[in-house]
Amino acid sequence: MEKVAIIGASGYTGIEIMRLVAMHPHVELVAVSSEQFAGKEVSEVFPFLAGKIRLVFQSLSQHTDLEKADYALVALPHQKAMEVVPGLLRKGVRVVDLSADFRFRTVAVYEQWYKAHTAPGLLADAVYGLSEVYRERIRGAALVANPGCYPTAALLPLIPVIKSGLVTTDGIVVDAKSGVSGAGRGAVLTSLFAEVNEGVKAYKVGTHQHTPEIEQELSFAAQKPVVISFTPHLIPMNRGILGTIYATLAGNATGEDVLQCYRGAYPENGFVRICPPGTVPATHQVRGSNFCDIGFVIDGRTNRLIIVSAIDNLLKGGAGQAVQNMNIMAGFPEDAGINQTPLFP
Amino acid sequence: MEKVAIIGASGYTGIEIMRLVAMHPHVELVAVSSEQFAGKEVSEVFPFLAGKIRLVFQSLSQHTDLEKADYALVALPHQKAMEVVPGLLRKGVRVVDLSADFRFRTVAVYEQWYKAHTAPGLLADAVYGLSEVYRERIRGAALVANPGCYPTAALLPLIPVIKSGLVTTDGIVVDAKSGVSGAGRGAVLTSLFAEVNEGVKAYKVGTHQHTPEIEQELSFAAQKPVVISFTPHLIPMNRGILGTIYATLAGNATGEDVLQCYRGAYPENGFVRICPPGTVPATHQVRGSNFCDIGFVIDGRTNRLIIVSAIDNLLKGGAGQAVQNMNIMAGFPEDAGINQTPLFP
Amino acid sequence: MEKVAIIGASGYTGIEIMRLVAMHPHVELVAVSSEQFAGKEVSEVFPFLAGKIRLVFQSLSQHTDLEKADYALVALPHQKAMEVVPGLLRKGVRVVDLSADFRFRTVAVYEQWYKAHTAPGLLADAVYGLSEVYRERIRGAALVANPGCYPTAALLPLIPVIKSGLVTTDGIVVDAKSGVSGAGRGAVLTSLFAEVNEGVKAYKVGTHQHTPEIEQELSFAAQKPVVISFTPHLIPMNRGILGTIYATLAGNATGEDVLQCYRGAYPENGFVRICPPGTVPATHQVRGSNFCDIGFVIDGRTNRLIIVSAIDNLLKGGAGQAVQNMNIMAGFPEDAGINQTPLFP
Amino acid sequence: MEKVAIIGASGYTGIEIMRLVAMHPHVELVAVSSEQFAGKEVSEVFPFLAGKIRLVFQSLSQHTDLEKADYALVALPHQKAMEVVPGLLRKGVRVVDLSADFRFRTVAVYEQWYKAHTAPGLLADAVYGLSEVYRERIRGAALVANPGCYPTAALLPLIPVIKSGLVTTDGIVVDAKSGVSGAGRGAVLTSLFAEVNEGVKAYKVGTHQHTPEIEQELSFAAQKPVVISFTPHLIPMNRGILGTIYATLAGNATGEDVLQCYRGAYPENGFVRICPPGTVPATHQVRGSNFCDIGFVIDGRTNRLIIVSAIDNLLKGGAGQAVQNMNIMAGFPEDAGINQTPLFP
Repeated sequence: MEKVAIIGASGYTGIEIMRLVAMHPHVELVAVSSEQFAGKEVSEVFPFLAGKIRLVFQSLSQHTDLEKADYALVALPHQKAMEVVPGLLRKGVRVVDLSADFRFRTVAVYEQWYKAHTAPGLLADAVYGLSEVYRERIRGAALVANPGCYPTAALLPLIPVIKSGLVTTDGIVVDAKSGVSGAGRGAVLTSLFAEVNEGVKAYKVGTHQHTPEIEQELSFAAQKPVVISFTPHLIPMNRGILGTIYATLAGNATGEDVLQCYRGAYPENGFVRICPPGTVPATHQVRGSNFCDIGFVIDGRTNRLIIVSAIDNLLKGGAGQAVQNMNIMAGFPEDAGINQTPLFP
Repeated sequence: MEKVAIIGASGYTGIEIMRLVAMHPHVELVAVSSEQFAGKEVSEVFPFLAGKIRLVFQSLSQHTDLEKADYALVALPHQKAMEVVPGLLRKGVRVVDLSADFRFRTVAVYEQWYKAHTAPGLLADAVYGLSEVYRERIRGAALVANPGCYPTAALLPLIPVIKSGLVTTDGIVVDAKSGVSGAGRGAVLTSLFAEVNEGVKAYKVGTHQHTPEIEQELSFAAQKPVVISFTPHLIPMNRGILGTIYATLAGNATGEDVLQCYRGAYPENGFVRICPPGTVPATHQVRGSNFCDIGFVIDGRTNRLIIVSAIDNLLKGGAGQAVQNMNIMAGFPEDAGINQTPLFP
Repeated sequence: MEKVAIIGASGYTGIEIMRLVAMHPHVELVAVSSEQFAGKEVSEVFPFLAGKIRLVFQSLSQHTDLEKADYALVALPHQKAMEVVPGLLRKGVRVVDLSADFRFRTVAVYEQWYKAHTAPGLLADAVYGLSEVYRERIRGAALVANPGCYPTAALLPLIPVIKSGLVTTDGIVVDAKSGVSGAGRGAVLTSLFAEVNEGVKAYKVGTHQHTPEIEQELSFAAQKPVVISFTPHLIPMNRGILGTIYATLAGNATGEDVLQCYRGAYPENGFVRICPPGTVPATHQVRGSNFCDIGFVIDGRTNRLIIVSAIDNLLKGGAGQAVQNMNIMAGFPEDAGINQTPLFP
Repeated sequence: MEKVAIIGASGYTGIEIMRLVAMHPHVELVAVSSEQFAGKEVSEVFPFLAGKIRLVFQSLSQHTDLEKADYALVALPHQKAMEVVPGLLRKGVRVVDLSADFRFRTVAVYEQWYKAHTAPGLLADAVYGLSEVYRERIRGAALVANPGCYPTAALLPLIPVIKSGLVTTDGIVVDAKSGVSGAGRGAVLTSLFAEVNEGVKAYKVGTHQHTPEIEQELSFAAQKPVVISFTPHLIPMNRGILGTIYATLAGNATGEDVLQCYRGAYPENGFVRICPPGTVPATHQVRGSNFCDIGFVIDGRTNRLIIVSAIDNLLKGGAGQAVQNMNIMAGFPEDAGINQTPLFP
């Protein structure tokens, strides 16, 4: 049994990590931090965890149990994570960080889209935690930078077809639809039920901070700069991201080529499931699970490959992939604690 | 007071026409048809209309009050409408037809995407009822083919910028998100609450029958063939369509050019509202109203114009625009019966 | 045209008053107050009102246009309203107040369930604005205390059967279900989409502040003290209240007695609609309208009358009834501005 | 590994059993029946199960793999179950039946509320599968009649306080709120998304067929006839039942008495969780889990005990309790396959 701490456990991502760790056969949860709820029992704040977790939230500053941890899953906001992670690493704790702070290969890109970076020295050794793509590097990493939810939904379907040259790298459009938990648990007007329910909207059009993260990894896959249009939308549902991706087919690429490409990239029995030819996934078929389902259609009229991907933003798009990365780091079965069947309906 | 009949009044679009006509100051509802509910009082089937409509549904075959009508709003499924409309026209009834049957300029396109046409002779004189674009022709028309919901959300924002050459006609993507009432009131598995709620999906990817309708009108605006990628999505909400549209800017077109283009095309106080610069609409701001709100962002990184449009699919995307067209035909104020303030929240 | 001011116009109730006044044929909106949005155009804050309202929010303290008003609709929180209303009355403005501050006949009850009262002298002349019950007194009132949403849903069905002695006054249970807009527009954790969606909960069990308001009016109707059990629930929907009410039948009361009682109390063509015998209403049949629909079932097994009532909490449960009261005060047709057909679906 | 068959696997309850069995460590799924989807792969019909279940649906009449099963979980509609269960028992298969067919102690009650019974001889030996109450009898049973969803939510909180005499048995009200999956997966108008969303309604007021089931068990607990008022409501959510229960306190019963009563009836670490004093549960805290959470409030003003219970209707209210019963029958740990942490949000 490895010992695990969750830093920032009272946001939706942190809560989800608690939920998953409570079902994990090979780890013991030893500490959970929350500034807002410090001193309160987990089950008092989150009655759904009654009988599952018997810990008290601790403030990060007074966190006495943190040193016991072998692994820390850090679910703090960006800018906060970079304050905490260096100290954890110095104590020998292996870290999966769910913020954006360690996802970029160059500090300049981070600082252009976010703010100033106070621990740029860690970027070189941090491993981008897209599990299926960087599994080997994750295995030995001290610091894994867990991908953003939208990048996960965009990169898992795009990287294989870009690497294999089946699509051109110009003119890619990623039109993504996310459930509201992606906006976090902050009490803000725009996340109120009556503001969100019975409606759909686009937000941060052309300016969302996940854009450079997607572009970084696509550029690396293509071995040349890739610029995309990315538009996120808010959907009246708790969980889920659907990515609708438009790319132009290269040369004479066929649907069979695309299918073989995906089957090669993502073997059966993993967390990436390829839909039967001609079908595309819906978010309900991955809800509550760590799956990323991918389907596609060849649109001969426009010579486009239209790919649809579906994830649960809190699982494969966040907490689930973080646990997956911890499993890889620890040598556990990759699906330990995250092999739940999706919840339908 | 003009006399109005609603043919096919028990689907969501027909119901919405009843709702609107009940608030219309210049028309009298004289007949409503429904095969399913023939012989029943409207208010028995639809308690929300108690006190508002005091008619009995009649079967179309035994419809004795139909001849009294000056205007018929026909909300039958496609293929059914073409059986009924010719007879109405022969009796001198002016028709707004909400099916796809009379929307196409050439019968070949209809028959490619739908089925065989039994009244192709009417196509030449039918007027495509996109009110703001074809207002003058609608005024004198005997038969108006009311646009589809998705085409309305796509064409109102695209036609002005295409006509004015601000965007290229290649590579346009229309990624649309619709509420579930757009799927109709048929008792089908895929429209069940528990199948739709807490999820989002794409459907008919690359094959939706509204594609040629959008392309027909864009091609007419561009004076050359335009082919687009159109992907509809189902959103867990009752009403609303959000269109997210990606087009490449032509030449040195600026945001100011686009804004002026829209302001020229859609004067203040009409049903098309242009959002303040830099903002895009959400469907909740048009819910329950006949507005089409349009906003846009210039994405300098990709040289794209990203337009977002929002309508209530049952109002401007269907029943509302049908009443608007009837108002134009009858010389009523264009907003008679459809000037409701949107319902928020 | 009478001149109307809305005090506290940026909460859900105030917004709804704006929405309704924008459709009202006999009044002109001259001023809207909001502390949060003072200085901003209404349509900038609420894009759904673009083209409908062209005013700027003013802070109450700097409200220069307030004196112009003939009627003020005050949608401030309780305790705030009592600070503002006396001044309005002194200026000769007739007031419909939507807070709880002037609903109680005795200050002691108010102070037991709320807080200290700073304007108790106004209670004697304030008229409880349950329109159908107190219409005559409302007509001449300077200050109308608009009922709470839950009390409206409970009192309209209960008062007639209590007055006529058809039910006993012991053991009444009011189990109510409300949409989330009833919780207001404050950015609080418990109103976040992901906290509310896909769930239902009871709250303030046995302690809700609308309890004494319901009991006051039932006791007045019964001419003896009535104590009830009232449990509110939060439902994942924007609008609507459903009241399920359990009362014991008195003597040999029959369903026909109850039906005649209701028909006598609520004539046709008013805002209270009695459902056909044996049927009960759903909230969707009143959504977006000022109707209160009432249906009932006689449960012979338990000798109970089970009544179900449905309102839109923002219309008949708040803003709509406030406008109705203003219409009564001003001698307008009682449904002016609030005669919309319900929005279905 | 025991072998399990699911009869009637394509309704929501049957689907949920498949989902749970796929996570069960001690059983192997050997056969799934569906008339509608016979011959199709499970994962083709339900893509969410891809990689989890690799079986083909078989028609019941041509079910060749059925005989292999040690346990059959039967999720057929009532009346259908009684045709199938006798044959299974004759083959030595132990059965958990989720229909109403074997829940009643006397055939007369069944036939009064349902229809004629064709296998009344099995009633005497069938065990009512309320796991926590009848655990000992379930252990040795050949046929367990799994309780209805509403009865589970009503009986678990009521039986202990009735058995211990803390409440009177007169005048009990059970006001229940259910998600839409409780209505089944049939394609019917009243279950369509746009009919249910943004609304709440009561149904089968005074006549719901779960009434006699609740009364039978309450009467048995009280050792005298108990008659209740039971009103079910439909809530716009997929899963969950909230029971709000009103009972009159007997004698001098206190909150502490009630708390001790519950703690005695339901030990820690079981599926029934007692909320901290003064708090009541919401359905979101049991979603996706087999928990039944119970909380209560003493309403001194009316001398009532108000209890609130929350279950996931598809888990503890159906499939989950069925698996729990199978675990008891087979001697597995009682939570095998159903120990998931609730899904929040």
